[in-house]
Amino acid sequence: MAKAEGVKKRAPVKTRRPPVGASPGTLIADPAARRSELRLTLISPEKFKTIDKASIDDLNTHCDNWPVVWLDCTGLANIQLIEEIGRIFNLHPLALEDVVNTGQRPKVDFFEDHAFVVMRMIDDVKVHRYEQIAVFFGRNFVVTFQEREGDPFDPVRKRIAASLPNRLRVRGADYLAYALIDSIVDSYFPPIEAASEEVDGIEDEMLNTPHKHQMRQLHELRRDANVLKGVLWPMRDALATLIRNDVPYVKPETKIFFNDTLDHALRLIELVENQRDMLTGLIEMHLSLSQARTNDVISYLTIVSVIFMPLTFLVGIWGMNFDPESSPWNMPELKAYYGYPASLLFMLAVAVGLIVFFKRRKWL
Amino acid sequence: MAKAEGVKKRAPVKTRRPPVGASPGTLIADPAARRSELRLTLISPEKFKTIDKASIDDLNTHCDNWPVVWLDCTGLANIQLIEEIGRIFNLHPLALEDVVNTGQRPKVDFFEDHAFVVMRMIDDVKVHRYEQIAVFFGRNFVVTFQEREGDPFDPVRKRIAASLPNRLRVRGADYLAYALIDSIVDSYFPPIEAASEEVDGIEDEMLNTPHKHQMRQLHELRRDANVLKGVLWPMRDALATLIRNDVPYVKPETKIFFNDTLDHALRLIELVENQRDMLTGLIEMHLSLSQARTNDVISYLTIVSVIFMPLTFLVGIWGMNFDPESSPWNMPELKAYYGYPASLLFMLAVAVGLIVFFKRRKWL
Amino acid sequence: MAKAEGVKKRAPVKTRRPPVGASPGTLIADPAARRSELRLTLISPEKFKTIDKASIDDLNTHCDNWPVVWLDCTGLANIQLIEEIGRIFNLHPLALEDVVNTGQRPKVDFFEDHAFVVMRMIDDVKVHRYEQIAVFFGRNFVVTFQEREGDPFDPVRKRIAASLPNRLRVRGADYLAYALIDSIVDSYFPPIEAASEEVDGIEDEMLNTPHKHQMRQLHELRRDANVLKGVLWPMRDALATLIRNDVPYVKPETKIFFNDTLDHALRLIELVENQRDMLTGLIEMHLSLSQARTNDVISYLTIVSVIFMPLTFLVGIWGMNFDPESSPWNMPELKAYYGYPASLLFMLAVAVGLIVFFKRRKWL
Amino acid sequence: MAKAEGVKKRAPVKTRRPPVGASPGTLIADPAARRSELRLTLISPEKFKTIDKASIDDLNTHCDNWPVVWLDCTGLANIQLIEEIGRIFNLHPLALEDVVNTGQRPKVDFFEDHAFVVMRMIDDVKVHRYEQIAVFFGRNFVVTFQEREGDPFDPVRKRIAASLPNRLRVRGADYLAYALIDSIVDSYFPPIEAASEEVDGIEDEMLNTPHKHQMRQLHELRRDANVLKGVLWPMRDALATLIRNDVPYVKPETKIFFNDTLDHALRLIELVENQRDMLTGLIEMHLSLSQARTNDVISYLTIVSVIFMPLTFLVGIWGMNFDPESSPWNMPELKAYYGYPASLLFMLAVAVGLIVFFKRRKWL
Amino acid sequence: MAKAEGVKKRAPVKTRRPPVGASPGTLIADPAARRSELRLTLISPEKFKTIDKASIDDLNTHCDNWPVVWLDCTGLANIQLIEEIGRIFNLHPLALEDVVNTGQRPKVDFFEDHAFVVMRMIDDVKVHRYEQIAVFFGRNFVVTFQEREGDPFDPVRKRIAASLPNRLRVRGADYLAYALIDSIVDSYFPPIEAASEEVDGIEDEMLNTPHKHQMRQLHELRRDANVLKGVLWPMRDALATLIRNDVPYVKPETKIFFNDTLDHALRLIELVENQRDMLTGLIEMHLSLSQARTNDVISYLTIVSVIFMPLTFLVGIWGMNFDPESSPWNMPELKAYYGYPASLLFMLAVAVGLIVFFKRRKWL
Repeated sequence: MAKAEGVKKRAPVKTRRPPVGASPGTLIADPAARRSELRLTLISPEKFKTIDKASIDDLNTHCDNWPVVWLDCTGLANIQLIEEIGRIFNLHPLALEDVVNTGQRPKVDFFEDHAFVVMRMIDDVKVHRYEQIAVFFGRNFVVTFQEREGDPFDPVRKRIAASLPNRLRVRGADYLAYALIDSIVDSYFPPIEAASEEVDGIEDEMLNTPHKHQMRQLHELRRDANVLKGVLWPMRDALATLIRNDVPYVKPETKIFFNDTLDHALRLIELVENQRDMLTGLIEMHLSLSQARTNDVISYLTIVSVIFMPLTFLVGIWGMNFDPESSPWNMPELKAYYGYPASLLFMLAVAVGLIVFFKRRKWL
Repeated sequence: MAKAEGVKKRAPVKTRRPPVGASPGTLIADPAARRSELRLTLISPEKFKTIDKASIDDLNTHCDNWPVVWLDCTGLANIQLIEEIGRIFNLHPLALEDVVNTGQRPKVDFFEDHAFVVMRMIDDVKVHRYEQIAVFFGRNFVVTFQEREGDPFDPVRKRIAASLPNRLRVRGADYLAYALIDSIVDSYFPPIEAASEEVDGIEDEMLNTPHKHQMRQLHELRRDANVLKGVLWPMRDALATLIRNDVPYVKPETKIFFNDTLDHALRLIELVENQRDMLTGLIEMHLSLSQARTNDVISYLTIVSVIFMPLTFLVGIWGMNFDPESSPWNMPELKAYYGYPASLLFMLAVAVGLIVFFKRRKWL
Repeated sequence: MAKAEGVKKRAPVKTRRPPVGASPGTLIADPAARRSELRLTLISPEKFKTIDKASIDDLNTHCDNWPVVWLDCTGLANIQLIEEIGRIFNLHPLALEDVVNTGQRPKVDFFEDHAFVVMRMIDDVKVHRYEQIAVFFGRNFVVTFQEREGDPFDPVRKRIAASLPNRLRVRGADYLAYALIDSIVDSYFPPIEAASEEVDGIEDEMLNTPHKHQMRQLHELRRDANVLKGVLWPMRDALATLIRNDVPYVKPETKIFFNDTLDHALRLIELVENQRDMLTGLIEMHLSLSQARTNDVISYLTIVSVIFMPLTFLVGIWGMNFDPESSPWNMPELKAYYGYPASLLFMLAVAVGLIVFFKRRKWL
Repeated sequence: MAKAEGVKKRAPVKTRRPPVGASPGTLIADPAARRSELRLTLISPEKFKTIDKASIDDLNTHCDNWPVVWLDCTGLANIQLIEEIGRIFNLHPLALEDVVNTGQRPKVDFFEDHAFVVMRMIDDVKVHRYEQIAVFFGRNFVVTFQEREGDPFDPVRKRIAASLPNRLRVRGADYLAYALIDSIVDSYFPPIEAASEEVDGIEDEMLNTPHKHQMRQLHELRRDANVLKGVLWPMRDALATLIRNDVPYVKPETKIFFNDTLDHALRLIELVENQRDMLTGLIEMHLSLSQARTNDVISYLTIVSVIFMPLTFLVGIWGMNFDPESSPWNMPELKAYYGYPASLLFMLAVAVGLIVFFKRRKWL
Repeated sequence: MAKAEGVKKRAPVKTRRPPVGASPGTLIADPAARRSELRLTLISPEKFKTIDKASIDDLNTHCDNWPVVWLDCTGLANIQLIEEIGRIFNLHPLALEDVVNTGQRPKVDFFEDHAFVVMRMIDDVKVHRYEQIAVFFGRNFVVTFQEREGDPFDPVRKRIAASLPNRLRVRGADYLAYALIDSIVDSYFPPIEAASEEVDGIEDEMLNTPHKHQMRQLHELRRDANVLKGVLWPMRDALATLIRNDVPYVKPETKIFFNDTLDHALRLIELVENQRDMLTGLIEMHLSLSQARTNDVISYLTIVSVIFMPLTFLVGIWGMNFDPESSPWNMPELKAYYGYPASLLFMLAVAVGLIVFFKRRKWL
């Protein structure tokens, strides 16, 4: 059924972690990880070159000849490859461990000659699957690690390929890192806005005809909003850390742009918080609407009972078998000429009286 | 119906944003944006001049000849015009992007020679539509961007036109910016106070006759208060940032005035918070009132049932068809001389006894 | 009715404000303001003098001849008078605007040669009407502005009049200001303690016989506590600001005394917070008590129904008209010798059995 | 009844305060205060001496001859005596006022040559009566003021009397003050742990047989926990202030010990917070249990009604008096040979069918 | 029963403490403490040696000859032994007191030449029993105290025994302490993830068939999550303190690793907070589901009552005994030719009409 679809199991935001007590910095591949593939983008103000399915040799060949190198690694199964990349760009082992053990909190770590940024991206809008994207950047390189195919970087790739003048080619590695991180942050807008519209739809439906399944949908949406909040807050903190720290490989001009990304993150948080407030209000309102409906039903039951119980009692009286023959006191009304119609009229009067009484009390 | 009116769709506070991954600083017009119109106000201590429907040429002609220039741009559809204004006043491209992508969080950004203030204004009290107003100000200019016609600046215009001595003409661009921002903040008082009165009205009505639709109204009002809170808090933060920072184009004397505006914002927040507390209390009270009413109805049902069930049972007994002819033990009361009246009296006694019992238990 | 009295309309804490967009520092009288009256108290260590219904001339005459001058202005209708006072003591125009526009948040502003303190005072315990009291003090003067007659300053006046040695006459204007502010803060104790006793009374009553009107009272009291909290917190902040700032016209010795007032404010907040916690607990408990009562009623209804429904069914069976004449299978019991008493005994057994069953299930 | 005992009136934590507007530093005895009694303990590393019912003369005689003097004053009725003590040890008048006006928030004030610590102690576990204990300490003296007999200082007294080496006699007045304050803080452990056990007991009982009185007990316990929290937080703050401030009469070595006391206070707060969380959870669970029970009862009622209503209708049909003589269509079943047993079997079938229906729907 | 198992008594997190007022630093054994056993691990870059059931003599013999010594003491009953260890490593007496009095809040204290870290470890997943682990470390030693056998240190022991190059043997005592603390923190992952799966299981079950016992399980799980939160937060604080402070015996390189542990702690807190949010949502949803079920039952009852009450009234009418012989007005229908079938049809029409009415109202 369509409804059952609506509540299908979300992919939980699991944290991959090494076995308890393992030596830090040891890379152990997740058995479920995808095969690693490299895509190398070489950038200079005048030209650029993209090598799909690049090898370590490509990396060694080109790395030092271009002002900015962007290496994008998709799939985290190939541990040797990842370690080799770490050696070439001198990446910190603890950071590399965080790359492989996906599900890290978004954060920024600064090392001597490079920064390490962990972001989380919504991978699939329908099942709220999140994917960790790790971004290393130094003076002349950006290295990104993704769990799977599919990323929000296509617009950045197009902008790199755009004709001159081209800020992305001129401004260096930190600006490229900013562009990538900004596109990750911005990729949250569409699903959050879609959720907002879903909330509005449920609200409209609920005000017309409250249903049980709406409650479940509202709960689902609130849970999703909670998860989103839990992802967005550390992203905000990471961005604030990026802006606040003084490291030589982040230029002050770039910080103004990171500030803009921080503004976007704040707007996202604001949207999600608003959504949660709305959802909490709607859940309360759903409860009160269903409570009100029960109250209506109970009132209805009461009215019917209160009208028919006395009537049933009366017909019971006249159904008693006291023998009119034995005594003039025994149910003389049964033999009265207008006995039956009088009794019917009397019962009608009782019913009307009770209805008037209820109308006065505003129960009907 | 009037009620349905009351819950009509509010205009959501949507965030306009560029396509995900677009190059920052690119201005892309909202297709729904209004045609831009400029109004230029030239101010010197001795005189002032207003040019409606001004052109860029007017701007170039007058800009340098007056101590203070106020350019008010209504409607954000004309991107070229906005970019031209940005070039003339040397406004930062990221700030201009925020002007066009309305629905920004209220904030302040300081640039080398001008500040950029984003405010939100209640555009229409009835549907709680918000409008973004962007204010740039430097040493000798103020530029404001509005989404639509209709603003709270008329009193400021009148004060500029007022006879001498005239602080607005003497104190420079930062004081003019203060006057404009202050009028935006103050424009929140009337709708918030109207909402307070609405709350009071619902409370009075509710204590007299609780109704389902009040619940809905209370929920609506609380949601509005939540939205207002979400708008006012960042405005407060922006004002505090304005006062705290040291930039050459905001004079210390003006900061005292901004401090006054901050006080107003705090009072607004206090009013809204009070309203929310009241609304939460009223919602709880509505629930408890309707609960109490259901309890009353159930008690009523119980009393009627408990009185009539035994009586109906009794009349049922005397309606049984055991044959008095077959045995002297079979329902001799049916043939008793006072059988019928005695049975009626007995049933009356049972009813009275139960009523007394309920009275004692305080159920009636 | 007495109850209706209990929930009568409180005077809302309204904020008077100038028209939106009015020039700051413009004094506009509240049409409801009382006629201004001045009372001048001239203080020196050796002697003191009080001039009721003082005029501006009195002020000009005496002001410079006494070490400390306390001008108390009651009623805020006379704008010219207030502006004149502002000119004599060199008070800041924005502060004077806050004096006239009552309903300000309690706060402290420091100016070059005087401080401006806004306090709120409970004007009438019964209707929780608040009154703004503005206190200006500099090196040798204290100016207080009140909305109405009636203030908590009488003990201070008596202490000024007390025989020597007299700290209030010796310690200067800041100590006098402290004494006045302290008496405003202390004036909150009696109504808060009265409310505490009211809460205790409702609790006792509620535990004996829960009633609907208690719910309403508890809600009223909680709302009052919320309002009080909203008044006391900014007063606390204002006092903390007074102690923290370094201005030449507040002596360090006086700060120890302001610290004591701050302690009192903290105790008041603690009392109010405790009261709110208690009220929230009592409201929850009232709900659960009334819920428990409904549960009792429903159990009662169920028991009666479950006992009488089978019995009524049984008497219905023996009231059926199957013809014993037509067949020996048709209701032979009706003609049995002990048919009737046996049927009664059987029904008794069913009833007793059900009651035993309920007792076992602890429903009775 | 035992239950009524359980909810007996707690002694409220009242704040004694001087009349509103009284001159600060004026000591006014609480009419309910106990007669003051002094106990003087004179301590030197080699020996110690205790004088019960000491007089001011004893104080003057011994004060300067011993390295550490501990004066313990029980009962606060004797204002002259307290003022005399204040004069001898040069205690600050505002602090002395706080001694007499019991019910102060726990706090620390530092004066030039002595500290003033206000603590609150649980006086009687059963009724949660709190007692204020004021501790003054300087370089060579400790003065404690208690409201009543009974204190947690006995272990300290024993440790003073213990044989050498004896830290309490060697380490000076600040260490003695620490020992006293530590014993006050530690005296909270037994009642809090007792309350924890009470909570566990109620939980066990509740899970077996939920009762109305448990709700009341849970509310009482939560209120107690709220009060305790309100006492413990300012004590924690006071201890943190003691450690943070640099005053010559608190030695750095002693601060390590005060740090330990702070740890104890944090553990107390943690215990109380846990208790509150548990109580809130239990209250919710009690509500849901009693709600579930009502649902059971209603289901029961419904099942019985739904089974017997159709049956009663059926017996009513066959109890109708349509005359079989008048027409072959009129109730021929009444004269059928197996009419009666067939009707009984039919009704049995209806009942069994309904029960099977309920079983299928899992209502039974 | 299996369910009763599910709610079995958890071991409370009790705080052992010395008698109120005891002299600080006095070690008093918990009567329930286990017999102490020592295990000495001697570590140098080239080799290592483990002595199980070591004695104080072993300690004295080897202590100074190895660069790093790790003494692991299991069981806290042997006070003399613990005091002896304290003397050898110069541990602070107050810290040793905290070792013996288990149930301390996790914390870090820095002393001149060693740090003292208190951690809490989950001892048994099933009953949520916690165990205190105290870690002292200085320049060349680590001393750990555990309450019981069973710890998460086995992986660390294996890594010490691993072949060269071996960071654990090279990096000194602070790195060893890090490895131990990290393994304690990481040991929280499995039980928290197990709880998450349990929550998911209950959710699935609940959405299919809501049951009372789920409520109890959800409450239990939320309480566990609260306890966990109360343990993890101070651990986070302790780790942050470890990183922030500058002490000579913690190398800067090691701080990067402690930072990684802090990240793990933050992830744990995030997981627990998410779990709590989910549980609160599920509890609310369970309530609303069971409320909805009751509403269904009540609707059902109402429908049956409303249908059968009028019918029963009708059959009662025709069961009245008015005598058709006495008057043509008295129940002529009883003698009508089609009286009986017409009455049955009429009642059928009433029933169908009511059902149609309910269908229209969407009650069926």
